[in-house]
Amino acid sequence: MREEILKLSKERLPYMIEVRRSLHKYPETGWLEFRTASMAAKRLQELGYTLTMGEKAVSKKDMMGVPSPEVLKENQERALAEGADPELVKIMEGGLTGFWGDLECGGGPGPKMALRFDMDALEVVENKTDKHKPHREGFASRHHGWMHACGHDSHVAMGLVVAEILALLKDRLKGSIRVIFEPGEEGSRGATPMVAAGCCKDVDIILGLHIGADAAEPGYIACGAQKFLATDKYDVYFKGLAAHSGMRPENGHNAVLAACAATTNMHAIARHSGGATRITVGKIIGGQGRNVIPPEATLVMETRGENTELNEYMAKEARRVIKAAAAMWDCEVEIKVVGSAPSGRSSEDMVAKIMEIADSLPEFKRVDGIINFSGTEDFSRMMTEVQKNGGIGTYMQVGTTLAAGNHNEFFDIDEKDMIEGVRICCLTVAEYLGK
Amino acid sequence: MREEILKLSKERLPYMIEVRRSLHKYPETGWLEFRTASMAAKRLQELGYTLTMGEKAVSKKDMMGVPSPEVLKENQERALAEGADPELVKIMEGGLTGFWGDLECGGGPGPKMALRFDMDALEVVENKTDKHKPHREGFASRHHGWMHACGHDSHVAMGLVVAEILALLKDRLKGSIRVIFEPGEEGSRGATPMVAAGCCKDVDIILGLHIGADAAEPGYIACGAQKFLATDKYDVYFKGLAAHSGMRPENGHNAVLAACAATTNMHAIARHSGGATRITVGKIIGGQGRNVIPPEATLVMETRGENTELNEYMAKEARRVIKAAAAMWDCEVEIKVVGSAPSGRSSEDMVAKIMEIADSLPEFKRVDGIINFSGTEDFSRMMTEVQKNGGIGTYMQVGTTLAAGNHNEFFDIDEKDMIEGVRICCLTVAEYLGK
Amino acid sequence: MREEILKLSKERLPYMIEVRRSLHKYPETGWLEFRTASMAAKRLQELGYTLTMGEKAVSKKDMMGVPSPEVLKENQERALAEGADPELVKIMEGGLTGFWGDLECGGGPGPKMALRFDMDALEVVENKTDKHKPHREGFASRHHGWMHACGHDSHVAMGLVVAEILALLKDRLKGSIRVIFEPGEEGSRGATPMVAAGCCKDVDIILGLHIGADAAEPGYIACGAQKFLATDKYDVYFKGLAAHSGMRPENGHNAVLAACAATTNMHAIARHSGGATRITVGKIIGGQGRNVIPPEATLVMETRGENTELNEYMAKEARRVIKAAAAMWDCEVEIKVVGSAPSGRSSEDMVAKIMEIADSLPEFKRVDGIINFSGTEDFSRMMTEVQKNGGIGTYMQVGTTLAAGNHNEFFDIDEKDMIEGVRICCLTVAEYLGK
Amino acid sequence: MREEILKLSKERLPYMIEVRRSLHKYPETGWLEFRTASMAAKRLQELGYTLTMGEKAVSKKDMMGVPSPEVLKENQERALAEGADPELVKIMEGGLTGFWGDLECGGGPGPKMALRFDMDALEVVENKTDKHKPHREGFASRHHGWMHACGHDSHVAMGLVVAEILALLKDRLKGSIRVIFEPGEEGSRGATPMVAAGCCKDVDIILGLHIGADAAEPGYIACGAQKFLATDKYDVYFKGLAAHSGMRPENGHNAVLAACAATTNMHAIARHSGGATRITVGKIIGGQGRNVIPPEATLVMETRGENTELNEYMAKEARRVIKAAAAMWDCEVEIKVVGSAPSGRSSEDMVAKIMEIADSLPEFKRVDGIINFSGTEDFSRMMTEVQKNGGIGTYMQVGTTLAAGNHNEFFDIDEKDMIEGVRICCLTVAEYLGK
Repeated sequence: MREEILKLSKERLPYMIEVRRSLHKYPETGWLEFRTASMAAKRLQELGYTLTMGEKAVSKKDMMGVPSPEVLKENQERALAEGADPELVKIMEGGLTGFWGDLECGGGPGPKMALRFDMDALEVVENKTDKHKPHREGFASRHHGWMHACGHDSHVAMGLVVAEILALLKDRLKGSIRVIFEPGEEGSRGATPMVAAGCCKDVDIILGLHIGADAAEPGYIACGAQKFLATDKYDVYFKGLAAHSGMRPENGHNAVLAACAATTNMHAIARHSGGATRITVGKIIGGQGRNVIPPEATLVMETRGENTELNEYMAKEARRVIKAAAAMWDCEVEIKVVGSAPSGRSSEDMVAKIMEIADSLPEFKRVDGIINFSGTEDFSRMMTEVQKNGGIGTYMQVGTTLAAGNHNEFFDIDEKDMIEGVRICCLTVAEYLGK
Repeated sequence: MREEILKLSKERLPYMIEVRRSLHKYPETGWLEFRTASMAAKRLQELGYTLTMGEKAVSKKDMMGVPSPEVLKENQERALAEGADPELVKIMEGGLTGFWGDLECGGGPGPKMALRFDMDALEVVENKTDKHKPHREGFASRHHGWMHACGHDSHVAMGLVVAEILALLKDRLKGSIRVIFEPGEEGSRGATPMVAAGCCKDVDIILGLHIGADAAEPGYIACGAQKFLATDKYDVYFKGLAAHSGMRPENGHNAVLAACAATTNMHAIARHSGGATRITVGKIIGGQGRNVIPPEATLVMETRGENTELNEYMAKEARRVIKAAAAMWDCEVEIKVVGSAPSGRSSEDMVAKIMEIADSLPEFKRVDGIINFSGTEDFSRMMTEVQKNGGIGTYMQVGTTLAAGNHNEFFDIDEKDMIEGVRICCLTVAEYLGK
Repeated sequence: MREEILKLSKERLPYMIEVRRSLHKYPETGWLEFRTASMAAKRLQELGYTLTMGEKAVSKKDMMGVPSPEVLKENQERALAEGADPELVKIMEGGLTGFWGDLECGGGPGPKMALRFDMDALEVVENKTDKHKPHREGFASRHHGWMHACGHDSHVAMGLVVAEILALLKDRLKGSIRVIFEPGEEGSRGATPMVAAGCCKDVDIILGLHIGADAAEPGYIACGAQKFLATDKYDVYFKGLAAHSGMRPENGHNAVLAACAATTNMHAIARHSGGATRITVGKIIGGQGRNVIPPEATLVMETRGENTELNEYMAKEARRVIKAAAAMWDCEVEIKVVGSAPSGRSSEDMVAKIMEIADSLPEFKRVDGIINFSGTEDFSRMMTEVQKNGGIGTYMQVGTTLAAGNHNEFFDIDEKDMIEGVRICCLTVAEYLGK
Repeated sequence: MREEILKLSKERLPYMIEVRRSLHKYPETGWLEFRTASMAAKRLQELGYTLTMGEKAVSKKDMMGVPSPEVLKENQERALAEGADPELVKIMEGGLTGFWGDLECGGGPGPKMALRFDMDALEVVENKTDKHKPHREGFASRHHGWMHACGHDSHVAMGLVVAEILALLKDRLKGSIRVIFEPGEEGSRGATPMVAAGCCKDVDIILGLHIGADAAEPGYIACGAQKFLATDKYDVYFKGLAAHSGMRPENGHNAVLAACAATTNMHAIARHSGGATRITVGKIIGGQGRNVIPPEATLVMETRGENTELNEYMAKEARRVIKAAAAMWDCEVEIKVVGSAPSGRSSEDMVAKIMEIADSLPEFKRVDGIINFSGTEDFSRMMTEVQKNGGIGTYMQVGTTLAAGNHNEFFDIDEKDMIEGVRICCLTVAEYLGK
């Protein structure tokens, strides 16, 4: 079985490159992955997986940060124009782009093992110069302002080949396999409503992976992670009062000044001696016309903490600063939670087993166990859920050569490292479900 | 002649209402007045005026705050779809929407007298409730986010009827008449390139008017103005560096923090003992994604001063604060001037004459001479130019009942007061050009 | 009588210079004028005036901005060491340094006429280089951090000579004369409690004067003033919570950050279209040790407005910003009013009469009537009180050559212009009380 | 020898309490420890140690954050009045309060071993209620605004008893002993000029200790530390221009607004993914009078980092923000370094040995090795110096019951835990120098 996994994963590289580049060219952000998801779902169907889609896969009331109905509709149509399957897109209406496929193995009863792959792109303007390979080779983003700058395109490509190999080997495995495709991982939006809909129900073992990130070095693998930054995502709406800036400035309630006071002062919240914290106002949009005292302003922001308590400290401080900034400029304010993820820690036994597997593969030249993860990943929500129910899970990071850091306009991976990602997934499944 | 002016102005009210409502329904902002301008130009042609259009009327290199080529193109097409004359629109390509019509009077040599009417709408979202008459009666804006909230729609309507009456009376007048239609008055953008193209060349007398504003009372007229707020309009672009907000926040150069520091501190520039000043950041837009240290931010702003020196004080202070805010957060910054208007003062003799005319009309119940104008009007650029060359000029404000202040979403005038505007214009021309 | 006034005022210049320089050398700030006041009171006694002092002259409960008991005591002792009269100082205990002297004229019944002279110095560090005449000639301040940088030293000198001349002429005058010496004019503290104690009771005519200020030109006089900047003076106390800045920064409630947010944002309060406003945080003091999250901070500040309404606008806005800044950083805040003055306007008839007197004096080369006063003077409190009771009053500014602007470390007057100040006061009294 | 150490340390508790309380009552801040140092130096002399004092012990040109000559002089006199030895104080003139005593052991050649004890108090106002034992028992601070809120009083007390015991045992020890008394540890000022003067020259082994801090638990000891927060201490002077706040606000260059912009924005410097950082403006003092645009402002501040690189990141960012804030408000600025300490790490072998000693003492119930130190201690400068020259060193923290955290107005220790401090010091010396 091991030899077949090694052979198949290598053979399927051209297919993975093709899938990855097609997704890179048509990146889709959270809840708008109509083309990506319908393509992946169709493939799972072909491979014999039973699909769970729509409201059965994504709990509508737990969805956060959903684009407006107009944007949803417009992107649904765009996806169709770009070749998405109309029937599948219909099921995803309203942004229900998350789904999973289940496969009963032929080898008799055994644990249920899930693998998670995320699908969404970022709001980043991709570089369009010849220094950037995706541009040079013609697969840079066609969706201006959106970019796969975090490698989720390759995650989908790997996920489909993992699903294919496991389907081929299913009679030599026991138990069952679930392949989860998560939308809106950026902004920590996808995991919560999928967990609420049951994607982790009865799951005994769960595996998530990321290419690059803390693993910006080929031949490296981190088999587990801890200290995921817990996070909250907010959209903050300040509402003031417009007035003519020349004739009656005193009548205005200046929402931009409120937003600026909030932004500056939130970044000044005291560092915490208990560990790492973060606060970022990633976007600010305010005002109407040049000569109108701005009657409204919006902040798109997030807090993070090395553990859940630290994130709560930041969130509490940030809320107080925001409310006071509104009061300072006689504005009203609404704070809307649009995303959230807890901290988490990989299961030690599972990490140990994967380290052994990685050590057995000569392509891994440096193998780490549980590392401190310096970012947020809402896979932590799924992993924590499985662990809470007595199961185990881990989050791996597979090394590659990065052209630039994650979320940068020059981000790019070395595509051949997708082989390693596929191998470590399949071998880990073989380890746990092998007869 | 006086009686004919009184009679004709009253008879043409229904026509004025029709024109005003059509423009109100299809408002167009600065440099995009393709439908408005082509409609007005066509009418002047019909009335026998010789047109000066395109680059001959608007000096391209002096245009400030011009929308992007995409926006220009899109709006050109929109205007055509809304019935604009294709030939005229072609001449205005690239936003050259300003023009004037000249008429030689039949009564022999005499002064050249110009009248200025502005055409552009504002970036204001019009109210869409039944409290608002334009909505109730079906002529509220069809262009979401744009609104005639400063009465320029009625200015065009009055201008066309003034042009018509003067054409009818031309043989009883000496000298010549020029009717100027100015785009982009909001943002103080239209007058400078039209003056540069020659709209005030050889003009001896110039007249501008506004409905409402400081004249929010029916039966009132201010025959002149001084202390126009001199102004500069800037677009400010901060350029920083993106970074992942969770994983490498220290690598970013945060352009939103630079923009917030600039905004807050610019509003804190010291008040000036020499007179009124203003500073407003009307719009702020910054950042890319929630979890990206914002690499860029834009401020849409203006300074004002009761006289040109005071505005220069504000501009100098603002520039220093902006540059320092950029340096503070290790960002680069570009300050682009997108509009500018000087202060100004009406010619006293001319104001005195108009006061007499106004006193002779019973509909004017309260007549003022030169008042302190509490806003900006780039007509001051034209008036100052004519005065510099030895001519005279004034800026009048004609009273009306306002549903709400200028630039407010509920702004509306009492349409029948357009009659008074037409009368005072025509009678003033008759006074100066009458044989 | 006129000739005697002209002659005496000139002869007394050496005496005035001596007094002025003595006071300049020992400047005393508000409520601490023990040496100044006892010296002036003693002189009035010698001249035959009946003194009203202590609580009868200053209403204790209306005193604002009084230094702490320690500071009062310390300065009382300092004044004694510097030669103040112990008996008089005793009466002034607790800072009751305001007083007045009354003189019945010999010419029979007539109006009661008051003249006000202020006595206090400023918290300014006087320049100690040879460019500065008071230093060069050895009469610069011996009280480090305090300086007569607004000319009140010369006001006292003029007041004593005015009192002397009027005493000499009293039999040729009718009615009665009151000479008021006001403490704590800076900070707008002295007038309110003196008015409350009765200094304006039954006064028919009141006169105040200032040297320099808007009259920085020898031979100039402004005989009246309007648009005094109404003002409120506040001391603001933020109270937070200390914590170790390295070990537990998150436990602190940072009062300095609250004070900074308040300061910056208060200066950003919107300018008012109704006229001139001001806001100044003149002093900020916060924190304890370098490595302690600052648990407290104090702002010493003021608002102003061209009229009382405008000042109230500023005060309302400032209070809201302060409270919100405290809330923003989880601090408590106390706002203490420590001074206040209304706007005001000189009585026109009185101004007209003084203009005639000034015109008759060749030394006045430029004579103005009621000018717009661009500062604050709490004499407006007394003048307004007298006018309210049916009396008249005015506030004059007498020109001099200023070495530097008021409140500057280089401030200095041309001492010989004190003669003009004395003349205009005495001649005005002669005009109103002359038989 | 061990038994004698145990016995003597216990017997000397009353003496230590007496010394500690005397110092607690008369706390002295950095470079002003005239009374403390002369008392300790005199005692060392009595015990037979050879003193190195004055410029030989403290390199004048490396002293940072020295009080003004007036303050130095005043405190020298104060100390004399409080019983300090005039001869010794003379040697310390100018703040040279650091010194050390050397003792040659009788047991022949061997390593040179140094022990460091710090002496200075903090600028904290001690609590004066009955909840606070030092107040209740009459030894609270007599120097208002200064307090031994970090236990250095007990360090001196322990140091003198350690010196006494070692002197008694010297013939049973080899090599030599140096007891260093460091001034100005708070603010990281004392170690640098003492190292520059040679306090660590030829030292083979160095030991520092602290009571409480991270060891707020009786019976606990941390035998080593790492991740000392590297730090820089700055005094920042903004220089603007004064102007009358009412009459000419536009002429001012507002140094308080510059200081506020710097303060707020410095706290907003991005958190670093590489580890803990800190920034604190512990004090702000600015402005002159309420109605003067503030011409100057001072910040008393510090940066910290978990390692030297992180501190350098903070310092670089802070300097840029400060300079830009000055430029923003047209002020000049001077940044003066007044203290500095590197990070550091205890020598592992030495820690291991001390852990064994601690384990052998029943009073230590919980023994830790190298812990992460969450504060700054400029002992790191000395330790790093010794290690650089091939020696070893460690910094220990000895547990006690704390009434409140370090630097808090309620800070107090359990005095009997000084016994443990003495024991661990003496036993460690015996371990290394025992024959």
